Amino acid sequence: MIIVLEKGVKDEQIEEIIKQAEDYGFSIHRSTGDEQILLGAIGIQSNFDTRKIKILEGVSAVYRVTEPFRLASRGYKKENTVINIGDVILGANEIITIAGPCAVESEKQIMTIAKIVKDAGAKILRGGAFKPRTSPYSFQGMEEEGLILLRKAGDEFGLAVITEVMDPTRIELIYKYTDIFQLGSRNMQNFPLLRELGRVDKPVMIKRGMSATIDEWLMAAEYILASGNENVMVCERGIRTFETSTRNTFDLSAIPVIHQRSHLPIIADPSHATGIRDKVIPMALAAVAAGTDGLMVEVHHDPSSAMSDGPQSLLPEQFKELMSQVRRIAEVIGRKA
Amino acid sequence: MIIVLEKGVKDEQIEEIIKQAEDYGFSIHRSTGDEQILLGAIGIQSNFDTRKIKILEGVSAVYRVTEPFRLASRGYKKENTVINIGDVILGANEIITIAGPCAVESEKQIMTIAKIVKDAGAKILRGGAFKPRTSPYSFQGMEEEGLILLRKAGDEFGLAVITEVMDPTRIELIYKYTDIFQLGSRNMQNFPLLRELGRVDKPVMIKRGMSATIDEWLMAAEYILASGNENVMVCERGIRTFETSTRNTFDLSAIPVIHQRSHLPIIADPSHATGIRDKVIPMALAAVAAGTDGLMVEVHHDPSSAMSDGPQSLLPEQFKELMSQVRRIAEVIGRKA
Amino acid sequence: MIIVLEKGVKDEQIEEIIKQAEDYGFSIHRSTGDEQILLGAIGIQSNFDTRKIKILEGVSAVYRVTEPFRLASRGYKKENTVINIGDVILGANEIITIAGPCAVESEKQIMTIAKIVKDAGAKILRGGAFKPRTSPYSFQGMEEEGLILLRKAGDEFGLAVITEVMDPTRIELIYKYTDIFQLGSRNMQNFPLLRELGRVDKPVMIKRGMSATIDEWLMAAEYILASGNENVMVCERGIRTFETSTRNTFDLSAIPVIHQRSHLPIIADPSHATGIRDKVIPMALAAVAAGTDGLMVEVHHDPSSAMSDGPQSLLPEQFKELMSQVRRIAEVIGRKA
Amino acid sequence: MIIVLEKGVKDEQIEEIIKQAEDYGFSIHRSTGDEQILLGAIGIQSNFDTRKIKILEGVSAVYRVTEPFRLASRGYKKENTVINIGDVILGANEIITIAGPCAVESEKQIMTIAKIVKDAGAKILRGGAFKPRTSPYSFQGMEEEGLILLRKAGDEFGLAVITEVMDPTRIELIYKYTDIFQLGSRNMQNFPLLRELGRVDKPVMIKRGMSATIDEWLMAAEYILASGNENVMVCERGIRTFETSTRNTFDLSAIPVIHQRSHLPIIADPSHATGIRDKVIPMALAAVAAGTDGLMVEVHHDPSSAMSDGPQSLLPEQFKELMSQVRRIAEVIGRKA
Repeated sequence: MIIVLEKGVKDEQIEEIIKQAEDYGFSIHRSTGDEQILLGAIGIQSNFDTRKIKILEGVSAVYRVTEPFRLASRGYKKENTVINIGDVILGANEIITIAGPCAVESEKQIMTIAKIVKDAGAKILRGGAFKPRTSPYSFQGMEEEGLILLRKAGDEFGLAVITEVMDPTRIELIYKYTDIFQLGSRNMQNFPLLRELGRVDKPVMIKRGMSATIDEWLMAAEYILASGNENVMVCERGIRTFETSTRNTFDLSAIPVIHQRSHLPIIADPSHATGIRDKVIPMALAAVAAGTDGLMVEVHHDPSSAMSDGPQSLLPEQFKELMSQVRRIAEVIGRKA
Repeated sequence: MIIVLEKGVKDEQIEEIIKQAEDYGFSIHRSTGDEQILLGAIGIQSNFDTRKIKILEGVSAVYRVTEPFRLASRGYKKENTVINIGDVILGANEIITIAGPCAVESEKQIMTIAKIVKDAGAKILRGGAFKPRTSPYSFQGMEEEGLILLRKAGDEFGLAVITEVMDPTRIELIYKYTDIFQLGSRNMQNFPLLRELGRVDKPVMIKRGMSATIDEWLMAAEYILASGNENVMVCERGIRTFETSTRNTFDLSAIPVIHQRSHLPIIADPSHATGIRDKVIPMALAAVAAGTDGLMVEVHHDPSSAMSDGPQSLLPEQFKELMSQVRRIAEVIGRKA
Repeated sequence: MIIVLEKGVKDEQIEEIIKQAEDYGFSIHRSTGDEQILLGAIGIQSNFDTRKIKILEGVSAVYRVTEPFRLASRGYKKENTVINIGDVILGANEIITIAGPCAVESEKQIMTIAKIVKDAGAKILRGGAFKPRTSPYSFQGMEEEGLILLRKAGDEFGLAVITEVMDPTRIELIYKYTDIFQLGSRNMQNFPLLRELGRVDKPVMIKRGMSATIDEWLMAAEYILASGNENVMVCERGIRTFETSTRNTFDLSAIPVIHQRSHLPIIADPSHATGIRDKVIPMALAAVAAGTDGLMVEVHHDPSSAMSDGPQSLLPEQFKELMSQVRRIAEVIGRKA
Repeated sequence: MIIVLEKGVKDEQIEEIIKQAEDYGFSIHRSTGDEQILLGAIGIQSNFDTRKIKILEGVSAVYRVTEPFRLASRGYKKENTVINIGDVILGANEIITIAGPCAVESEKQIMTIAKIVKDAGAKILRGGAFKPRTSPYSFQGMEEEGLILLRKAGDEFGLAVITEVMDPTRIELIYKYTDIFQLGSRNMQNFPLLRELGRVDKPVMIKRGMSATIDEWLMAAEYILASGNENVMVCERGIRTFETSTRNTFDLSAIPVIHQRSHLPIIADPSHATGIRDKVIPMALAAVAAGTDGLMVEVHHDPSSAMSDGPQSLLPEQFKELMSQVRRIAEVIGRKA
């Protein structure tokens, strides 16, 4: 923590500030210039509320100089975290594609789509079973029946599966069927849920909150890591801005930023970020060029009758073409897909 | 729903668009101008995914023309919702103040603060017992012991009490002690929790999500209303913007907007919106002038040792002075406090 | 500037960082803790590009610790800047109201409105003469004829006048007629224009850019102050966010923030911030309660035929009622209006 | 324009609304459903202020259904606009790279860099001569001398040149030296400047304003097109959001959105969007994958001594490597570079 003092600060004010900071457990180093005095406060409380110092008389500004997270940081762990799900390896050189429908709707639907995405090269099958959504009047998912069908489709076609968990009380049930837990963007700061997911021995993918900073997103990862689960990946899915042409603004710069600041793998979800089919393909390719470790894409064989998010789902042939372009772009940047 | 057709749209495209919209249950009215054709699609599905029409050939744009919420809207209920909590009446002419510490820390602390806020004119006592927060390393609350102390302080000083619920599994426990459930901004779209709170016979206050639009905020209220609980109020606590001088940007215009679009009472929380003590007072007064039905303010007798959010808590004398100004401004706009 | 070094930084990296910083003119103080090394770099270049240090090997983060502006800061000048325009005194205890139409449309219009606002207690008359707007197809203003009429109306009713300048080539012309130059939000960073306005001996009011931070807004003021014109005031008019219920989000917290960080007077413009008549009154009152030094309000006697911004203009009786409430709220907070 | 009426609207209110809309020049078509009445208002005023109808009694909402711009829209012109600058063709299949320093600093500097970028495959040389910037205390550019040197470097190495114009009074001077006028993001809504650039017979590149929507950005293009200059291209350079890890948030989705809604070519500028060298390369590749028609990249042979924006400038070898990857990604998506 750096404490910047006001011009004209009095000696007794400085003494009081130093005393308070020491009481909070910091050791203080003083830098005095012609125009300015700075106090460097070094300590171990990564989550200290810096406003406690900021409101003292004579303080002009306070800067936190440590990252608020620790286990999630590149400083803590230099090598990339690599996650093994059966024979799928996430976070290494290969770019992994997760694909499937927004929601599991029927056995026929999930089997049909599983075959399509497997044939095109996807490694992981997605499909929601619990879909409580913005409107209380919308389709809310097939619940356990959906989980059973998702697992069946995954097993049938040799795909790992991922599905969303929205509630600590459902973890046990979902655990029986899924390979990866997905934490939705609306739950990124659902702390009781984060804590419970930290106690589970399966990987968790954390979607970025709609207005979460990268710091807060990695802090959510920290919650899970601190509870003991090391298999965490993060997923960029667009942030809210004033621009309304797209559902959200896909923050692709987050990809190199995450790679620099953290060792965790990052997945990009162009389907939710853009919300409309014909923008999904260029943005998926862009994510690969930007260095993503994985893609998450919605695919539906009959999107006009999909029960949710049909308009952002790729058609089978589009997905196949996309996968072929992904492989070629991966090669350009020295990766595999 | 309004469907705007592209210039040069072909007749068979128009027919297909009409057919699809009718299949989705809409009846269609056509307006043909020199330069443009519009289709008015009237139906009852308030939550229809308009992108299903938008992606059809020949469609230029689609507008949803009904509010996505119904029970929460002023159109559904013309008179203000008035909520009775013991002898406190919220949503009528009197501006109600909720005050207290961020978290319950000890019996002595909550008793001391309860007396201070009661003497100054507050009607409801706030205090958190479950505090899972951004950092897994921060103080996480006194849990049930905190609830017991909060209830005790409320009873002792004749104050109703409000406390936050973060998890459906805790509703039953909290119900035993609280008069009002507070739903935090990070949980505004925690749909399983919203649904459960709709089944409870005590009022719920919904804090606006950090990046929630007013539509989404009222949609969260709709969830609770649709599950059967009519005693809902909303609380503005600042939204996230690019401005970093304040913790959040306090969107006071939301007050007249809510009054126009909904019948639910609105509370304003300047403590969380600004995050720093000396900004709380002017913004509390501004909220009253803007027409808020209630204020929620953090107060602490010894903020420098508060376990959370001390820097944004008012000192006792500040709170007393604030309450006196609130009463006088209320009078100017024809209200009582 | 504070330089935070990476964990595990090497000695030769530290030496190189110090050398570079010294070459840029800084003197360096070093704080070494158990986990972290900080370098305090003290110098006089308020506009140094900190990224030059940030990209060096071994640097984890760099913080600028001086405000980027100097003349505009409260640190530079403790007392409030008070601006005299004839017998109107802006920035002192009295809250000053600027009112009038969006644009001057005719002699009859400006005379009618000038009388209305004068009678209700306004001190300054507003009215645009050059209106180049978002659409090239909209009304573009009466130009010099409008300036003549504005001046005439001001003189007739004893009101000072303010009008917008959009272009350095028009300063000389506008100077002949106006008492205050208004710089529009779209020009807040029009640096050639800022520079020229610094050479003028009449006051300038700078509207906040639609997405300007408070730092950038005060930096625009700095441009004018640094060119020699000390009579600068700033005007909050809403910022762009994702919320679309109002034209912009009125950032009223900017009022106490400006008062703390700068000595310049601040005006609040609820008409442009909200964009719709029935939201203007509550937000004007809120601005007064929040501590604004002045209000800028659009008023029109016949808004349905106004050539621009009619829907956000107050009717004469509304304005009169507003002024009476403003006076009473001013009193509550110890001011005059 | 679509007018949505309130539930329970009275007949005389409907008549009044229709009368007013007709007075404004619209013809009205009425759609009556069980729950709702809609009025379709068809007319030719693309810039009509819809709030004029919105404030009438009985109106619930009003939607503008025509794009506010016309000449810039894909509806107006189906084929892509292709701009010829000497033998450089922008907006066709080939992806064009614009490269060079932020500012022209000396003959040696611009000559050195021009050679580097030419050898690597750039077609257009960038370099600022007028640099009025956020701080009045920063380097402000070499002015005409800079223009002379930029032209000389372009001619020497067979590169077209682009440079920024900030002020209508400088157009004539800059015209003598440049091939393309760059309009900076802070001037995107400098309407007098837009109008003048519409009268010039050289192409103009409009940078997106920091908080401009895509609508407003195309509206700025409309200004120039409406004044007679058809050679307009737009440049995405990042928008302001709450995320602070990068200078701005690079909105790459704007690329497919612009291609859908407009016929104008789009350039992507990863240097200003990210602000830091090691993020420029992945984001440049991402822009190509997303379908950009051109790239604008800052390059400097000695960035540590650059007078502005050194930290975001690529080193010569980095630029060369980037160009080679750009060519390969272009090929994957069926383009050339």
